[in-house]
Amino acid sequence: MSSGPPVEPTSEVRPDAGDLGARIMALADRLAEHSESRGGLTCTYLSPAHRAVAMLLRDWMRAAGMAVAIDPVANVVGRYAAAHPGAKTLIVGSHYDTVHDAGKYDGRLGILAALVVVERLHRAGVRLPYHLEVVAFSEEEGVRFSKPFIGSSAVAGRFDPAMLKLRDATGFTLAELMQETGLDPSAISAVARDPATLLGYLEVHIEQGPALLQAGSPLGIVTAINGGVRQLIAVTGTAGHAGTVPMAMRHDAAAAAAEIVLAVERRWQQATGLVGTVGQLAVPNGAVNVIPGACELSIDVRAGDDATRDAAVRDVHAEIERIAARRGVRVAVRETLRTPAASCAPRLQAVLAQAAERAGAAAHYLSSGAGHDALMFGGMTDIGMLFVRCGNGGISHNPTETVAAEDADSAARALLEALLLLAQGGRR
Amino acid sequence: MSSGPPVEPTSEVRPDAGDLGARIMALADRLAEHSESRGGLTCTYLSPAHRAVAMLLRDWMRAAGMAVAIDPVANVVGRYAAAHPGAKTLIVGSHYDTVHDAGKYDGRLGILAALVVVERLHRAGVRLPYHLEVVAFSEEEGVRFSKPFIGSSAVAGRFDPAMLKLRDATGFTLAELMQETGLDPSAISAVARDPATLLGYLEVHIEQGPALLQAGSPLGIVTAINGGVRQLIAVTGTAGHAGTVPMAMRHDAAAAAAEIVLAVERRWQQATGLVGTVGQLAVPNGAVNVIPGACELSIDVRAGDDATRDAAVRDVHAEIERIAARRGVRVAVRETLRTPAASCAPRLQAVLAQAAERAGAAAHYLSSGAGHDALMFGGMTDIGMLFVRCGNGGISHNPTETVAAEDADSAARALLEALLLLAQGGRR
Repeated sequence: MSSGPPVEPTSEVRPDAGDLGARIMALADRLAEHSESRGGLTCTYLSPAHRAVAMLLRDWMRAAGMAVAIDPVANVVGRYAAAHPGAKTLIVGSHYDTVHDAGKYDGRLGILAALVVVERLHRAGVRLPYHLEVVAFSEEEGVRFSKPFIGSSAVAGRFDPAMLKLRDATGFTLAELMQETGLDPSAISAVARDPATLLGYLEVHIEQGPALLQAGSPLGIVTAINGGVRQLIAVTGTAGHAGTVPMAMRHDAAAAAAEIVLAVERRWQQATGLVGTVGQLAVPNGAVNVIPGACELSIDVRAGDDATRDAAVRDVHAEIERIAARRGVRVAVRETLRTPAASCAPRLQAVLAQAAERAGAAAHYLSSGAGHDALMFGGMTDIGMLFVRCGNGGISHNPTETVAAEDADSAARALLEALLLLAQGGRR
Repeated sequence: MSSGPPVEPTSEVRPDAGDLGARIMALADRLAEHSESRGGLTCTYLSPAHRAVAMLLRDWMRAAGMAVAIDPVANVVGRYAAAHPGAKTLIVGSHYDTVHDAGKYDGRLGILAALVVVERLHRAGVRLPYHLEVVAFSEEEGVRFSKPFIGSSAVAGRFDPAMLKLRDATGFTLAELMQETGLDPSAISAVARDPATLLGYLEVHIEQGPALLQAGSPLGIVTAINGGVRQLIAVTGTAGHAGTVPMAMRHDAAAAAAEIVLAVERRWQQATGLVGTVGQLAVPNGAVNVIPGACELSIDVRAGDDATRDAAVRDVHAEIERIAARRGVRVAVRETLRTPAASCAPRLQAVLAQAAERAGAAAHYLSSGAGHDALMFGGMTDIGMLFVRCGNGGISHNPTETVAAEDADSAARALLEALLLLAQGGRR
């Protein structure tokens, strides 16, 4: 880039210690007031709570000097434009949907860190030599349709149109639900960004694990995001009366599923760097006095390298087949997600490390066990992720998830420094 | 009893072979047209389908010469009165609610057999020397509130008012639901019959097992009904992110529940005459990427003698405590039902055996693995049960449940003969 006003970071743009963190914590509390579940935080894709959060983010982004649009998959996109229209774009994003009974910071911390940084730039009158897009992705958790990344896959040009036919628990398809809430599914493909226009992708996110706590570091530089495989397993046995069918004559789908759960757990425990979870487990319409004729469960496997993960999945499938044959039940496996591990760009790792240092936090390097929106941008543009220390033992996807206000402050200040460092590098 | 016209069974009252069976099959099909589930039969307590079935039964009973009332728990009570108001009452009952995705005959066969028999008596102008009450019980399966016998417990004077506070899956209490559908919970106690006014209780029911099929008998005389224990087990672990919490640090509620399911199965397999089932199993709001923080399951145990059953329950509880301690999860057990085994009255067994013989079917004696409304009347009045052979391997609580029309015919004719035999005995 050759134009745009020079960026000379003055003391004016840098906030007093604690200011950004305090504001992030207050805004996260405001967002958490909107929930589908009473007494807890649940905000799934296209729910009324989800809509309310989008409206707040839109208003806040606007007040921070951004041009804001809600795109056809309900991403809230705030654009803090460079002076030169032909400048490249840096996307800073994370998601605003949540799991059931969630914490307040998963996803939202990254959106709010970017927001308060732009508020700061705007107030100080600092223009960047690149367009900065703060994107609040609408869906990352995969709760409603058992498929994650609806928001970020659209922006990254990886949205699979087959997803429009997926049904949620109430039987509505994704397409129907979008139309009902005023979104236009036919416009999704236009959301995809041209990789040639991008400078890169940055994401701030809570770690959701105990590594930074154990290392004593508030911030972490992510080296790579683990790949993952998700599958839904449907076991079909034979329903029958709980009082009259002898034990030896049964083909109990729930008992077979229980064996599968334990087989999964045993196999994952054998390897390091591998985690596997059965997060969904249910006998549909189960009754206390009916032998289960069906049972459904989900498998989520993640590993630092794809070969280790795939070997574990193969072993588990072989074990599932043995269980099914022995019990006389049928098992159908449907894969809903397969993402390769993604590396973070060395230059963005270096920028984030330098930025963290300027913000007063020593850099700790680690890989991400969780998937993130950044995963969708891997291979499309350079990605970089800054992790923030999780309190309370590193617990997440849980109402007791916490982040210290000082750590949120360090994260936002490091993000600000990173944007300024990229602005200097951008005048090359 | 000293009054009432003499009952002299004439050929007029006895139908041609096949007539009653054909009518029962046709009426069962009519009832099965009303369902909560599309393409299957589900009719749970106080659903719109349940109400529609009650209306049909009321109309049919009325047309058969009975005085009909729907009582405060939605039982449909048809009274075929004796000439003498002070005569005793024989109750012939079974239930019209169903499990999810049920067969057409469980419960309803017994109601329809009694109905077609009264149609026959009415058409032939035969009055009995006792009041005959055909009771279509509203709730026996325990699907909606995880507690069975709402209908028959009220008539037997065993309704537990604490049940009014139970909530269904939508969060409504039983009391709220009753009021919403025009029933008066405060009038339930008045439904209870005075044992002194009763002659006894008879019930026709499909066997729901393979014993009569294997014996080659269309009808069975029940000697006793197995006792049962039902418990709901809530496992509480620690929710967490599926990608970031190392396997060794997890307290996964679903994995603990899976171990419990298999421990239950192993223990029940050790003893004969004992069956145990985990019919409900669910991670509430489970998500593919969240380590389950909670899992709920149900246990249903039945045995011919209470001591065998209770020993098995004790062993399973000890195993559950070991599993919970090892995994660092908490387990809460709530008992929802405990019924002792109930013996059928020898005099009614003898009447039913003689009646079956008159109807052309050799009597086969067996005990009932399933609980039935008759269980509620055990100890209150004499009970007798007539089982009808189940087709298709004895399968029940399943859409493939079948009964042969000829077997339904034999059952209704045997019931008619039993009523006539009791009428002769009643003139003592």
